[in-house]
Amino acid sequence: MNGVDGAGDRYVVGVDFGTLSGRALVVRVGDGAELGTAVHEYGDGVISSALPGGQVLPPDWALQNPEDYRDVLRHAVPAALSAAGVDPAAVVGIGIDFTACTVLPTDADGTPLCEVPELRDRPHAWVKLWKHHAAQPHADRINALAHERAEPWIGRYGGKISAEWQFAKGLQVLEEDPEVYHRAERFIEAADWIVWQLSGTETRNVCTAGYKGILQDGQYPSADFLTALNPGFGDFVTKLDGPLLPLGARAGTLTAQAAAWTGLPEGIAVAAGNVDAHVTAAAAQAVEPGRLVAIMGTSTCHVVNGAELAEVAGMCGVVDGGISPGAWGYEAGQSGVGDIFGWFVKHAAPAGIDSHEQLTELAASQPVGAHGLVALDWWSGNRSLLVNHDLSGMIVGMTLATRPQDIYRALLESTAFGTRMIIEAFVEAGVAVNDLVIAGGLTNNKLLMQIYADVTRRPLNIIASAQGPALGSAIHAAVAAGEFPSIHEASQAMGRVHEAVYRPDPDRARAYDALYAEYRALHDHFGRGGNDVMLRLRAIRNAAVESAVATPELALEPVA
Amino acid sequence: MNGVDGAGDRYVVGVDFGTLSGRALVVRVGDGAELGTAVHEYGDGVISSALPGGQVLPPDWALQNPEDYRDVLRHAVPAALSAAGVDPAAVVGIGIDFTACTVLPTDADGTPLCEVPELRDRPHAWVKLWKHHAAQPHADRINALAHERAEPWIGRYGGKISAEWQFAKGLQVLEEDPEVYHRAERFIEAADWIVWQLSGTETRNVCTAGYKGILQDGQYPSADFLTALNPGFGDFVTKLDGPLLPLGARAGTLTAQAAAWTGLPEGIAVAAGNVDAHVTAAAAQAVEPGRLVAIMGTSTCHVVNGAELAEVAGMCGVVDGGISPGAWGYEAGQSGVGDIFGWFVKHAAPAGIDSHEQLTELAASQPVGAHGLVALDWWSGNRSLLVNHDLSGMIVGMTLATRPQDIYRALLESTAFGTRMIIEAFVEAGVAVNDLVIAGGLTNNKLLMQIYADVTRRPLNIIASAQGPALGSAIHAAVAAGEFPSIHEASQAMGRVHEAVYRPDPDRARAYDALYAEYRALHDHFGRGGNDVMLRLRAIRNAAVESAVATPELALEPVA
Repeated sequence: MNGVDGAGDRYVVGVDFGTLSGRALVVRVGDGAELGTAVHEYGDGVISSALPGGQVLPPDWALQNPEDYRDVLRHAVPAALSAAGVDPAAVVGIGIDFTACTVLPTDADGTPLCEVPELRDRPHAWVKLWKHHAAQPHADRINALAHERAEPWIGRYGGKISAEWQFAKGLQVLEEDPEVYHRAERFIEAADWIVWQLSGTETRNVCTAGYKGILQDGQYPSADFLTALNPGFGDFVTKLDGPLLPLGARAGTLTAQAAAWTGLPEGIAVAAGNVDAHVTAAAAQAVEPGRLVAIMGTSTCHVVNGAELAEVAGMCGVVDGGISPGAWGYEAGQSGVGDIFGWFVKHAAPAGIDSHEQLTELAASQPVGAHGLVALDWWSGNRSLLVNHDLSGMIVGMTLATRPQDIYRALLESTAFGTRMIIEAFVEAGVAVNDLVIAGGLTNNKLLMQIYADVTRRPLNIIASAQGPALGSAIHAAVAAGEFPSIHEASQAMGRVHEAVYRPDPDRARAYDALYAEYRALHDHFGRGGNDVMLRLRAIRNAAVESAVATPELALEPVA
Repeated sequence: MNGVDGAGDRYVVGVDFGTLSGRALVVRVGDGAELGTAVHEYGDGVISSALPGGQVLPPDWALQNPEDYRDVLRHAVPAALSAAGVDPAAVVGIGIDFTACTVLPTDADGTPLCEVPELRDRPHAWVKLWKHHAAQPHADRINALAHERAEPWIGRYGGKISAEWQFAKGLQVLEEDPEVYHRAERFIEAADWIVWQLSGTETRNVCTAGYKGILQDGQYPSADFLTALNPGFGDFVTKLDGPLLPLGARAGTLTAQAAAWTGLPEGIAVAAGNVDAHVTAAAAQAVEPGRLVAIMGTSTCHVVNGAELAEVAGMCGVVDGGISPGAWGYEAGQSGVGDIFGWFVKHAAPAGIDSHEQLTELAASQPVGAHGLVALDWWSGNRSLLVNHDLSGMIVGMTLATRPQDIYRALLESTAFGTRMIIEAFVEAGVAVNDLVIAGGLTNNKLLMQIYADVTRRPLNIIASAQGPALGSAIHAAVAAGEFPSIHEASQAMGRVHEAVYRPDPDRARAYDALYAEYRALHDHFGRGGNDVMLRLRAIRNAAVESAVATPELALEPVA
């Protein structure tokens, strides 16, 4: 933690709600110094096999318990205050960010339906976590109908609505548990729900409403469209709609109850909700157009502001003010990055060199192209640009001389090529990408960072905070508290970035152009219909596994 | 070793000259019982970096010392006789098989030029081992000219002469060391040279002359063709030509000197030379048409007799009497099989499951297709059907759930698919393949064998000898000694095979048809011009490695 607490200083608290835990961070308003932080793990974590009451869940489900989110307020915030050693009375605001689309049904006062006793054993009454993937058939129908009717909003989402988002999840609730659907007076992002818990006021933020809720130009999809999906779905927007707030706005003030939970003063500003990736842009001083923020962890999320509206095939979405007011915020993503490297270390690296550190060191000692390999980074499917989670990984070029560090490096490079595909799609559509700011856990790998600079031919800036989302939320809290007139100014004062830490080397960049050309050809062949082998292998796999479950005595290979 | 030495029994000795050692086997004529064996390692092994005198060799060279071959006669044969406990006087013949094309220049009396003192420091005076690959440019020119002139013999070799064979190696000698070329009165396969050493008589066997020497219908390539390659090459055939013997023929009788080396009686029959793969057919009771022998080790060699002549695109060659007199002998091969599995265990299996036994056991417990993977088995290039050693390996279908045993199994399967490609090429050209006999070290892997039966939809027979080539050579010795009228009859009496040990399972075979269809599509895409990415990656790799050698200070990735 930086800085020294001084008399008269004011503070804000940022709370980052992640997939497995929530983190609170206490930040000084004047310079963004991070003074204290604490993490609280969710008691129920990700609920994917059975409800706490024992009800078994189908495959691809992922739920959460909203009480775990309140526990973060009760435990992590006081602990962070204590660690910071600041007087809570000097805290002027609180801001939060959340995973998204993480969404729950509530009644009119915000009570989650899973907390209504008679609904507690109903899976659809619980929070659907972002990675709940069981609504794919519903998303498929939404997409097919949107294209059939040429809905004006579909192009704003790269041509595809994700199964993770509000309308797919809502339609699944309606069709699989209509009683819960009808009981749900509100259907709300967890980001907005926790703000409601803090402030007692229901609001909706433009970020989740736009990226996850298909709100474009002030309109949700029409009742006509929704009724065509399912006659009972025409009222869905009435469950979503609410006072819409721009990012950095004050949603309300801290209630007495929330003050008791957190140890913060009643009445301080509560900022509008936000998304973990998007809020990081403020922490990284990257809210001006042309500076793309890549939050690189197990997966990567890319956000960049643009001055103009453009439709970019395969991106996740574009939202007016979705990253900061006054600009069009673009989002794209790679669904597998660090988790591919982790898979390799765990499942494919031999004894003695089975750590990221060893593999990276060995991989660094070779010129570009010397391993003779190219990989497609689709171990976890492809979010952008292909939007297909049935795609899978591929490596080409192995010989008997291929070493583990060669494959490891090819995997690092493959994710850089995936990022370049996204950048080029933006640029081709007219969205400038001049440089990159990298945030997230993977910034520690210097070889990886240099590869990204060389492959993308762009300077890499590195966020100077280890808690980008929580810092971003604190910056939004400062704006909501009136400490700064805008996110831009708050970001300048409180955000932190190391500029141009990695610059592209012309020789290596040239060498990578040749490998990238191979990546691109393979990308299009396997991802755009040249050979749908990956989709067929997935279907064969699923059928084989299902038949093995059905008749386990036939599954084993009876060898002589 | 089987059987009991009885009074009046007669014996033969088979000697198998491999890449690193030679093995002698003493066999009873009546029933093929293997009574004693011994191995002698070559003192100089494979000479690939420098001559024993210190002269450095260029990349891709592989030489041997002919004195090492004589040492096998001096050490392994007496040791095998001793182990067998038979009276040497009861031995009636000796036969040998050799790696091929392994070839050397000699003077008129058979003295290797590397044993001529003033030539001992000249690399081209030494034996060129089969895997000497430095004559690829010469092979390329031979192939280009053969197609340009529509030479009638080129179709007998699947359309391509290998860089490993006599004409490519001979042309390299001429062009790189003309003095050695002109001093070489004979240019002879090691198989025929060791027979010359044993019998004092120079002969040529139809097997190496046909498969490695482009002898077809009694004719070598014309002087006109050779002169067009290089004006000095027109006389090459005069160095190759010699008394041509069918397999099983008596090349001569054992000289006094060879009797002294081996401890065998002077004057016993010495059989015509043979090749390790082809001679195994006799040991496997697989000389009738339609029964394909696959000798599966680090690589696989396939030999099968056919009643008719057919040209099979991508095979290694077809030779009249090349496996046994009276049939057309076909040869094909896979350049990487067991060595791919070995690569995986060494370089890609994590601690705890890094043995063939563990991986096989884990891989067996899954239904066909459950791993969701397909691989191309080209880690060591592709010998048949694509005849391109710049091709490389590929795997498609990986997810975060992919386990090491999944990839291991996909690699096993990929080599089975490669074998099926070869079988189908034979069948489509009219060469029947009714069942398979498997020989070699990989017969121990029951899962692998069952996969081959299921993938090829053919019963698998397994050779019942662990020393297939040496047993095959002993059978040829028995024929040369007049103990049997033909190889067929000797093979019936002395060869051994377990019939139909593995039979295809209809359900698994059907499931494999779907995966094989994917393999075939990928095979053609990457191997037949759909996307030459493998060839470009190889070129990029070679250029990167060369530049790193030239300027090592630039090779390292300078990470920040």
